[in-house]
Amino acid sequence: MSTISECNIVDELRSIVGRDGLAVDDAELMVYECDAMTTHKSRPLAVVFPRSTDEVARVVRLLSSQGVAFGPRGAGTGLSSGAIATGCERGLRSVTIEMARMNRILEIDYANRRAVVQPGLINIKLSQAVAARGYHYAPDPSSQTACTIGGNIAENAGGPHCLKYGATTNHILGLEVVLPTGDVVELGGQGAETIGYDLLGAFVGSEGTLGIATKITVRLTRTPQLVVTLLADFLDINDASRAVSAIIAEGLLPAALEMIDGVTINAVEASVYAAGYPTDAAACLIVELDGLKAGLDAQARRAADICREHGARGVREARDETERKKLWAGRKGAFGALGRVSPDLLVQDAVVPRTKLPRVLADIYSIGAKYGIRLSTVFHAGDGNLHPNLNYDGRDADEVARVLAASKEIMQLCVDAGGTITGEHGVGVDKIEYMPMIFDEASLDAMLAVREVFNPRGLCNPGKAIPAQRMCREYRRDFGDLVS
Amino acid sequence: MSTISECNIVDELRSIVGRDGLAVDDAELMVYECDAMTTHKSRPLAVVFPRSTDEVARVVRLLSSQGVAFGPRGAGTGLSSGAIATGCERGLRSVTIEMARMNRILEIDYANRRAVVQPGLINIKLSQAVAARGYHYAPDPSSQTACTIGGNIAENAGGPHCLKYGATTNHILGLEVVLPTGDVVELGGQGAETIGYDLLGAFVGSEGTLGIATKITVRLTRTPQLVVTLLADFLDINDASRAVSAIIAEGLLPAALEMIDGVTINAVEASVYAAGYPTDAAACLIVELDGLKAGLDAQARRAADICREHGARGVREARDETERKKLWAGRKGAFGALGRVSPDLLVQDAVVPRTKLPRVLADIYSIGAKYGIRLSTVFHAGDGNLHPNLNYDGRDADEVARVLAASKEIMQLCVDAGGTITGEHGVGVDKIEYMPMIFDEASLDAMLAVREVFNPRGLCNPGKAIPAQRMCREYRRDFGDLVS
Repeated sequence: MSTISECNIVDELRSIVGRDGLAVDDAELMVYECDAMTTHKSRPLAVVFPRSTDEVARVVRLLSSQGVAFGPRGAGTGLSSGAIATGCERGLRSVTIEMARMNRILEIDYANRRAVVQPGLINIKLSQAVAARGYHYAPDPSSQTACTIGGNIAENAGGPHCLKYGATTNHILGLEVVLPTGDVVELGGQGAETIGYDLLGAFVGSEGTLGIATKITVRLTRTPQLVVTLLADFLDINDASRAVSAIIAEGLLPAALEMIDGVTINAVEASVYAAGYPTDAAACLIVELDGLKAGLDAQARRAADICREHGARGVREARDETERKKLWAGRKGAFGALGRVSPDLLVQDAVVPRTKLPRVLADIYSIGAKYGIRLSTVFHAGDGNLHPNLNYDGRDADEVARVLAASKEIMQLCVDAGGTITGEHGVGVDKIEYMPMIFDEASLDAMLAVREVFNPRGLCNPGKAIPAQRMCREYRRDFGDLVS
Repeated sequence: MSTISECNIVDELRSIVGRDGLAVDDAELMVYECDAMTTHKSRPLAVVFPRSTDEVARVVRLLSSQGVAFGPRGAGTGLSSGAIATGCERGLRSVTIEMARMNRILEIDYANRRAVVQPGLINIKLSQAVAARGYHYAPDPSSQTACTIGGNIAENAGGPHCLKYGATTNHILGLEVVLPTGDVVELGGQGAETIGYDLLGAFVGSEGTLGIATKITVRLTRTPQLVVTLLADFLDINDASRAVSAIIAEGLLPAALEMIDGVTINAVEASVYAAGYPTDAAACLIVELDGLKAGLDAQARRAADICREHGARGVREARDETERKKLWAGRKGAFGALGRVSPDLLVQDAVVPRTKLPRVLADIYSIGAKYGIRLSTVFHAGDGNLHPNLNYDGRDADEVARVLAASKEIMQLCVDAGGTITGEHGVGVDKIEYMPMIFDEASLDAMLAVREVFNPRGLCNPGKAIPAQRMCREYRRDFGDLVS
């Protein structure tokens, strides 16, 4: 691997994307060596900033022909190291394809409730562009003011309001994709119906391993006429869990149903995100209902009654938009607030059946206690998507080891409860070793075979999402007790 | 291909499924030579009736090792010849794997709103089993009293209430699948979140070409507290189309929004399905709203107002459950009623953007007139899923030729309008030649490559859903004007 060859590649990349479409200086590249999960780092050989599908296709064809690994990147807000340059473990050089310059809204079609956008468009900008006409783009990750719709597609991103409205995959109607071979294909279509194999669905959530989306048709969602937001506080977190199950079992479908535990409440209330949560509560629920005005109050009263029947000390309704926004700012700022408690924070992500929440939560706190880790939970309770947060100091090697051990034990716990290892952050580099906890060898082989179809040379985002066969066997031994 | 070899295969099949698990007599096999689309026929070498996943896997391994084609079949109610034995065009013998005996409900889990069933379960039996607890299984094809959930998965079946609740793919959480190699894999999981590639989505709607589902985890849907059903009648079918767009644009999401044209109304009213539709109307809309009691009347009033604002002569609400059922019996019996008008009926299936309905409908009637075909439409208007119906006499060769030409022209019209060639009946054998109207070569190649992964010998349901490369090029020439 000679430097001359690297120079040649850089020159050829420059001839495609132009002098200002390329970053190669170490100081610039440092920004791209990790995403919002800082535990995994890897610096690319170069970062390119294409402006069109054609530039993406030419870059991909060049890198593929030269045996250079590559992967797409949006805003780098991901929490599974899905956007970092990989391949070096196989001796490959790697180039990051940063989609930030392809950030335009190409078309808005209100009558058919859809829009066509480029992948680098920041999530919230689409909602802002259609707000005046009474529409929005429903998937709302906490990072929505920064993250891109292309990145959301890679990770099949969720968000608080995905309980009612579904995750990213439910809002993507069609894609133009540059395959790892440089071919350009269309997946899905303009409508809800798909024919042929549903490769659109397989692409969404494939974490950049099947190609790079360059044009995206999304569904627009009508903004509800009215929103009612309740804050219910509990002295026993199990009561809060049971209220969550009861609300869903009643047939109510809140727009969002979030839980914040006592540790998180106190971190939030001591921060700039202070939302007026009661600091002596064991847990709070945010229950948001939306829809047509008629009948919504009755639904809200029923939800409040269910909370009270399950031991809520109090239930209050946000009186106005200001108070509503404050309640949400606390929830969305929770990770930031927890970050102030210690130098480092590991935001975990797992899913369990709602009915298992009380037992699993109790066990998670036990695991925290056992390893002596400051542990809190704040999460999308309505769909059982847990975010246990582990505070630690990365300079303390012993504490790091305990955090990793606790983290792995939490994964095992959630899988044992019939759950899974990620709800919305993706597998990326971070959780690839956990995949054999969920899938047997035949299923992983099937996924690898599908990857092989699109990515025959294995150069597109290697080492992410699906473990290679050899890795898979090793991890399987590692989790022998669990998977046997 | 010696008879002895065929005898050997039959003997070995018998040793797997038992004497009463096999049909080989011509009189028995005749039942299996077509499905509800009678234009394509092909008789299998044998039909097997397995009772377990293990039997299915052993049958598939045997047939695969012997180079015999095979395909799954449910109740045979499909409308695209997806359930017939194929492969003979390649000189292959073919065995039909009939799933009717794997028809049990294995588990019902109300708290997490899901059930585990076998593929041969008849669609409506699941809804009946959970009705007393206030749940149902939402996808409701018109054939739901006969069709199986396995068959629904193969074709990603729709139904009137899929407008609000989504098609089959939105209600399948996990599958156990026997791959064409005989390997058994799990796709998806118990919850809404999927990790790894979403191969569950790719499997649903793959028309039996990627393997055979043997165990199915479905979502259960809460039965709405209240249902309001409106019948609006129009003297101009374009007014009815515009009312459809306006209802959706208003932000209302009816549970169902169906259109029945004048020809169909008269056929229905002259039949046992007579529902009291006004026989002098150009079209009727059935608008059904459901949900929590509170507020539903306001929504129904708004929908009725929109119909009147768009020229409805009258809007009436079903006064009770008897009248509501009668309105639906007319709609669901429409194909039967039309079948009485002539010896043969071709039920077409296509989708166009809702906003294009007025123009496309006018053009469809023109095509009928041009070819001198008695043509009517009855369809899922809310999601633009058209069912143009062509009445004809199969004994009249000239009329058959005109029906096929008209049918092809309707497909081209819908594709030109930004639509697609099937909404819910699938591609099967019948529409495989139309696939190049929708997909370019790179996209079809990608689908074929995925099929190759699961179905490397091409023995699992050959000649369906995705055209082979050679066929694809031929069809492409055929549609040269359209796809160029």
